[in-house]
Amino acid sequence: VKIFKKAILPLGFQASALAGGIKKNGKLDLALLHSQVSARAAAQFTVNKIQAASVVVSKSHLKKNKIFRAIIVNSGNANCFCGKNSLADAERTVQYVAGALKTEKEKVLVASTGIIGRRLPMEKIKKAIPHLVTGLSRAGISEAKKAILTTDTFTKEITLKLNLGQKTVTICGIAKGSGMIAPNLATMLAFILTDARISRQALKKALGTSIEHSFNVITIDGCMSTNDAVFLLANGMAKNAPITSGKNFLIFQHALQIVCLELAKLLVRDAEGASKFIQIKVSGAKNFPQAKQAALAVANSNLFKTAIYGENPNFGRIAAALGASGVRLKEESLKIKVSSLQKKDIYVDVALHQGKAACTVYTSDLTCEYIKINAEYN
Amino acid sequence: VKIFKKAILPLGFQASALAGGIKKNGKLDLALLHSQVSARAAAQFTVNKIQAASVVVSKSHLKKNKIFRAIIVNSGNANCFCGKNSLADAERTVQYVAGALKTEKEKVLVASTGIIGRRLPMEKIKKAIPHLVTGLSRAGISEAKKAILTTDTFTKEITLKLNLGQKTVTICGIAKGSGMIAPNLATMLAFILTDARISRQALKKALGTSIEHSFNVITIDGCMSTNDAVFLLANGMAKNAPITSGKNFLIFQHALQIVCLELAKLLVRDAEGASKFIQIKVSGAKNFPQAKQAALAVANSNLFKTAIYGENPNFGRIAAALGASGVRLKEESLKIKVSSLQKKDIYVDVALHQGKAACTVYTSDLTCEYIKINAEYN
Repeated sequence: VKIFKKAILPLGFQASALAGGIKKNGKLDLALLHSQVSARAAAQFTVNKIQAASVVVSKSHLKKNKIFRAIIVNSGNANCFCGKNSLADAERTVQYVAGALKTEKEKVLVASTGIIGRRLPMEKIKKAIPHLVTGLSRAGISEAKKAILTTDTFTKEITLKLNLGQKTVTICGIAKGSGMIAPNLATMLAFILTDARISRQALKKALGTSIEHSFNVITIDGCMSTNDAVFLLANGMAKNAPITSGKNFLIFQHALQIVCLELAKLLVRDAEGASKFIQIKVSGAKNFPQAKQAALAVANSNLFKTAIYGENPNFGRIAAALGASGVRLKEESLKIKVSSLQKKDIYVDVALHQGKAACTVYTSDLTCEYIKINAEYN
Repeated sequence: VKIFKKAILPLGFQASALAGGIKKNGKLDLALLHSQVSARAAAQFTVNKIQAASVVVSKSHLKKNKIFRAIIVNSGNANCFCGKNSLADAERTVQYVAGALKTEKEKVLVASTGIIGRRLPMEKIKKAIPHLVTGLSRAGISEAKKAILTTDTFTKEITLKLNLGQKTVTICGIAKGSGMIAPNLATMLAFILTDARISRQALKKALGTSIEHSFNVITIDGCMSTNDAVFLLANGMAKNAPITSGKNFLIFQHALQIVCLELAKLLVRDAEGASKFIQIKVSGAKNFPQAKQAALAVANSNLFKTAIYGENPNFGRIAAALGASGVRLKEESLKIKVSSLQKKDIYVDVALHQGKAACTVYTSDLTCEYIKINAEYN
């Protein structure tokens, strides 16, 4: 297994990006990811009951259809909570892309991120899409990974190469997100592309397991977004023996989880206004859900997050958050350890002594910068 | 019914306060509330599984005993999460008070607030208590209401006088709290004194109903404390016909609820670093718990709170918080109204159109001041 801290497209994929005028500041705001051959897909979406039109349309295409060619992404506008217009605009976007690519609209997936409650500028998007299609190239990923960003301060990208039999399989992931990040997806956008040959069922299972231990164990502000999604496309161009179950599945799933966890950690490292990267491990829980619930209760406590920001060793706030979490614990057997608060990376270790399950959650501190960014964002 | 925005002790009550050296800055940190005759009591405590020793001791006394004479309160130290020492120190505190008052220790209740995880300075407390007892007076409430404060910037107090038959009943409440405020009590300290004659059962019921619609519908930072409590003492000195049920009960309960709600709102007005007082009304819910859950989901959303701070009309964040709340709703029937954000008092009205239940919740915005206060508090 080789890991590269940059996006390198797997075989058969292309990408492009441009500034279509959705963002007022003239930055890149449209990205197209494209597979030259049909790809299988798996995806997970926000569990928020208010769902962006991009989520509704992508879900519907994933239900109707088994092969896909492209994902169109816009940043700067969530295309959400505009009544029926949101849905019509998302439908039109995939139609324009399908038209330009000469494929069916059900083979196109869509993602949006940005402000909620504003109409998409459809004339601008219609005009931009043919240029996105003609601009597709292998090198285009270097722009596409920028075009999906909003308040992010850096790109999130990783590539992993592994050998399966005689073949090299590549998994490449890019992501965006730095606020409105909470578990149960509802988190951010991530696009993972692989040339692995893998059954649809195995793809879905590998993604589900990987997300549970990566994007679902990070939280920045406990706020669950309406838009966010993890997409995984697999086009089989690596020509490996098909992955269905057994050892090859486990190798692939493990590799995918590394990609997901690295992207998830990068999201936390870029948390809005954050000055610290915090890892909270809860062990000795009765079961995994209890361990996760306890760790997230600490991670989402504003008082804990501000104490870390202030480099203030206030263990009481950790105990109070655990006590309020609803998880089984006893004060007399609870052990809490915190690493030096003067460093950027903080490790919190909680031992509940109630069982054998453990979970590690990643979060950031809560700072004045976060307040400023979110007071002014519009 | 007459309402006074200051604490006026009901018949038969006295109070005192002094600076015992628990707070490093020499401010008042010990308060004693005393009834010259036996009083009935009702109380509610935090539901945090880590409970301060004061909560454990007061609960035990309320279980064992039916009449009470005093409440001893210290600020500056929560006396929590110090292992067995916490409990021993709380026991010793009530013993000292009982000794000085020449009463039994089970007739003394205790409350603590401040930093978690530090030992109480028991020598200082032992030395201070006789002075607290000799200092008891009717005027002492004006100092006692200050001695219970921590990060508060003003005292919280209210007095209500109502006529029951030929008699005037007085209900006086004081409270502290400005952070670590979330519903289900776990919230703050409040002490309510009344000279009403009322059965123990009616007292408990009146307090329960009043709290549900006051202290349990406020949230500042969603953080549940280990210490907090609402105490209600009734000493019968008003000599009204005993309140048990029926019309007099409803009148008393309603008056008590006014006192509780006013104190609860004062807590929110003094929220750490807050620049706005926000009232969120959710109507058209299936039932009251759903209405409350939806309103609290908005109230506890950091993104909503920072948007209000920034006077940034970001309705999408309200919709996203409602969608993530777990409450039944449909996007197409959801209506959201927000009053002018340039004012200090903000009104958010949400109509779910799923039923007839409503709940109003009170909260504050999230500001850089909150971060600074909590980053440095220690």
